[in-house]
Amino acid sequence: MADASSPIGVFDSGLGGLTVASAIMDALPHERIVYLGDTARVPYGTRSPRTVLRYARACARRLQAHDIKLLVIACNTVSAVAVDMLRVELDMPVLGVIGPGARAGIAASVNGRVGVIATRGTVASGAYGRELAGLSSKAELFPQAAPLLVPLAEEGWIDGAVPSEVVQHYLEPLAAAGVDTLILGCTHYPLLVGVIREVAARVLSADVRVVDSAHATATELQALLVSRGLARTEGPGDLRIMVTDLPGRFAEVASRFLGRDIDESAVEQIDL
Amino acid sequence: MADASSPIGVFDSGLGGLTVASAIMDALPHERIVYLGDTARVPYGTRSPRTVLRYARACARRLQAHDIKLLVIACNTVSAVAVDMLRVELDMPVLGVIGPGARAGIAASVNGRVGVIATRGTVASGAYGRELAGLSSKAELFPQAAPLLVPLAEEGWIDGAVPSEVVQHYLEPLAAAGVDTLILGCTHYPLLVGVIREVAARVLSADVRVVDSAHATATELQALLVSRGLARTEGPGDLRIMVTDLPGRFAEVASRFLGRDIDESAVEQIDL
Repeated sequence: MADASSPIGVFDSGLGGLTVASAIMDALPHERIVYLGDTARVPYGTRSPRTVLRYARACARRLQAHDIKLLVIACNTVSAVAVDMLRVELDMPVLGVIGPGARAGIAASVNGRVGVIATRGTVASGAYGRELAGLSSKAELFPQAAPLLVPLAEEGWIDGAVPSEVVQHYLEPLAAAGVDTLILGCTHYPLLVGVIREVAARVLSADVRVVDSAHATATELQALLVSRGLARTEGPGDLRIMVTDLPGRFAEVASRFLGRDIDESAVEQIDL
Repeated sequence: MADASSPIGVFDSGLGGLTVASAIMDALPHERIVYLGDTARVPYGTRSPRTVLRYARACARRLQAHDIKLLVIACNTVSAVAVDMLRVELDMPVLGVIGPGARAGIAASVNGRVGVIATRGTVASGAYGRELAGLSSKAELFPQAAPLLVPLAEEGWIDGAVPSEVVQHYLEPLAAAGVDTLILGCTHYPLLVGVIREVAARVLSADVRVVDSAHATATELQALLVSRGLARTEGPGDLRIMVTDLPGRFAEVASRFLGRDIDESAVEQIDL
């Protein structure tokens, strides 16, 4: 039976969710994390909801075998489709990234006009809009697909003219909407937060709030663990990484998302 | 038994290979084409060679059921791994894109210094270098991974400052190598050929030759069909498209790669 000493399961279709694992490690340094990245089947964004749910179920079951106390779905695509279903099926607390991101966005906004940049799949799902509508009848969401930001983040091409012009291209439609808050609705985007903040301050407004779903998720996770008596408050934290395929440049890309070096002995390739 | 009236099978991991289908339609207007895009499992570039071969075999067998006379592998990743194997297993002519691209590159080059831009996977496979080494003992290949070009092509973001600066970023290392010929080693790149030519003329040299693998493949295909008595020389050509998943924006992206409107009644979703 899982208790406070049990690990937290974190799951993503690939390696982007390591930005969420990183935020959790920063906020909760005593926690043990088991991360599963389904790198053999990434990206999920182009799969049907039925397929995404099937993949998510397999990943969640695999993490359950590690006696996790809570599951974090560090993937916007899966969060848009499968959080409620997995919560019922797994009989454990399940936290996605969309709810925390939307709540932090509403909390940050003064005029109720909130922009979100995300992948085409997340925008098409309408999940941020539904979440926001459930939180406030006055808030209005302005979604903007920003597909080039994922490859820029994966390449580590995060400063200079190109990333700045790409971000500007995506933020200009949001400027016309008068948003005062911008949610980063994709786990890859925290790598580009520097250039996004800079461009947002110039294109949207000088005091625009930029909300990072990864940090918002870590903050809600902390509160949830404390409220359920599941927080681990002493001892060293650790991170174990399972992937379904070891793509080329794994260590380089993973380190970039995690914001620290990868301990290769803590990485295991598994079949699902 | 397949004869000249039988269709040509064209297979890719996704929709990029439609640029090859388009070049074939231009060069061989009487041919019938059956295209299979394995959109449910795209991209192949991050899979292991064993997995790529397994997927390729399934796709090839599916096309064989359409009584094809010849198989074109319109995918650099599969061409790098599976052409020889499929040729033996299928007992029919099999043409990849890497051989034609490399031969056209050697033919175009004066100084024997040939650059190729491609995905990271194709560069890592070393396939263009092996092909070139088999053609000429003096030629030297300079490969350059250009990962941002695929999403730019898929988005249709093919002119303006951003594509130009991205291409320049990738071509600058090739300028130092003194290449006089540049092979487009990815089926997505023909969409960006305008900006690539413009930047190559500026960054590499005014008379740089840009070789498009899709056109090179169509040219070799034509010669191969004629030499085997398999060319279809009259009647209207047609194109039938099979995909393993119908991703969002399918018609938009597919039309872009094909360079003409998609007849949706000619598109079929299949399971493999």
